[in-house]
Amino acid sequence: MAKTPRPFFSTPEEAETAFYEALERVDLDAMMAVWSEDDDVVCVHPGSPRLIGLSAIREAWAQVFHGVKGLSIQRVGLIQNHALMLAVHSVVQYIAVAGDTRTVPPVIATNVWRLGSDGWRLQAHHASAAPPAPPESQLPEPRILH
Amino acid sequence: MAKTPRPFFSTPEEAETAFYEALERVDLDAMMAVWSEDDDVVCVHPGSPRLIGLSAIREAWAQVFHGVKGLSIQRVGLIQNHALMLAVHSVVQYIAVAGDTRTVPPVIATNVWRLGSDGWRLQAHHASAAPPAPPESQLPEPRILH
Repeated sequence: MAKTPRPFFSTPEEAETAFYEALERVDLDAMMAVWSEDDDVVCVHPGSPRLIGLSAIREAWAQVFHGVKGLSIQRVGLIQNHALMLAVHSVVQYIAVAGDTRTVPPVIATNVWRLGSDGWRLQAHHASAAPPAPPESQLPEPRILH
Repeated sequence: MAKTPRPFFSTPEEAETAFYEALERVDLDAMMAVWSEDDDVVCVHPGSPRLIGLSAIREAWAQVFHGVKGLSIQRVGLIQNHALMLAVHSVVQYIAVAGDTRTVPPVIATNVWRLGSDGWRLQAHHASAAPPAPPESQLPEPRILH
């Protein structure tokens, strides 16, 4: 079976868009294609322990996606810190599960992107649940620092 | 009253040591001296909303420190991603509160350090509670990537 070529992301934004598209489509292969292949990639799901390495991270995403038909994710309050080879994005995710009308608390995510020979890749994703109804001050306009 | 001069941190490690020393001593001024003075500094305490800006961040640390005499913090599983101007550290914090024998769940922290004209400063701190007793695989030896 021909292996699907890994996509190339030329900016952290492009890679982050692919990450959230994969999450919305609950597409495990597309999700894992966004990650760096470094040994020390880190993933923290809300309320979960820190996972290190692609194998543990893939397994956890498979559990997250299990039985889920699709997600709708609104991203607000993006704060970006960019350097030449490293970029950190802080964002608040409002998630709706397809076919489930329950309200899910917002999730705060810190995404760490690294530029390697294969373009920008996800090096770390740290997500944690925030209390419902965050104050307005948490939602600044998107902007890039430095 | 003479203003205490801000310390200069020449590496992210030095700044991070100062951060955890301030936390252990519950020293609010020393804690705030570690932070960048950028408008968009970000702080997330476990289970709390995302805070932006020094004023909100100072107020939250004051609440965390209120009535606490001291903390003892063991840091394990440091994973570092360094670039020229930006460094991201992922670490698991085991916290003991002075005079309180209750077990506190470990806290996963992502610390984002930025090099500015005033040395390395804390740009973002994202902390979230992990379940108790993380598996051994979460505790690798400290190492630097790239």
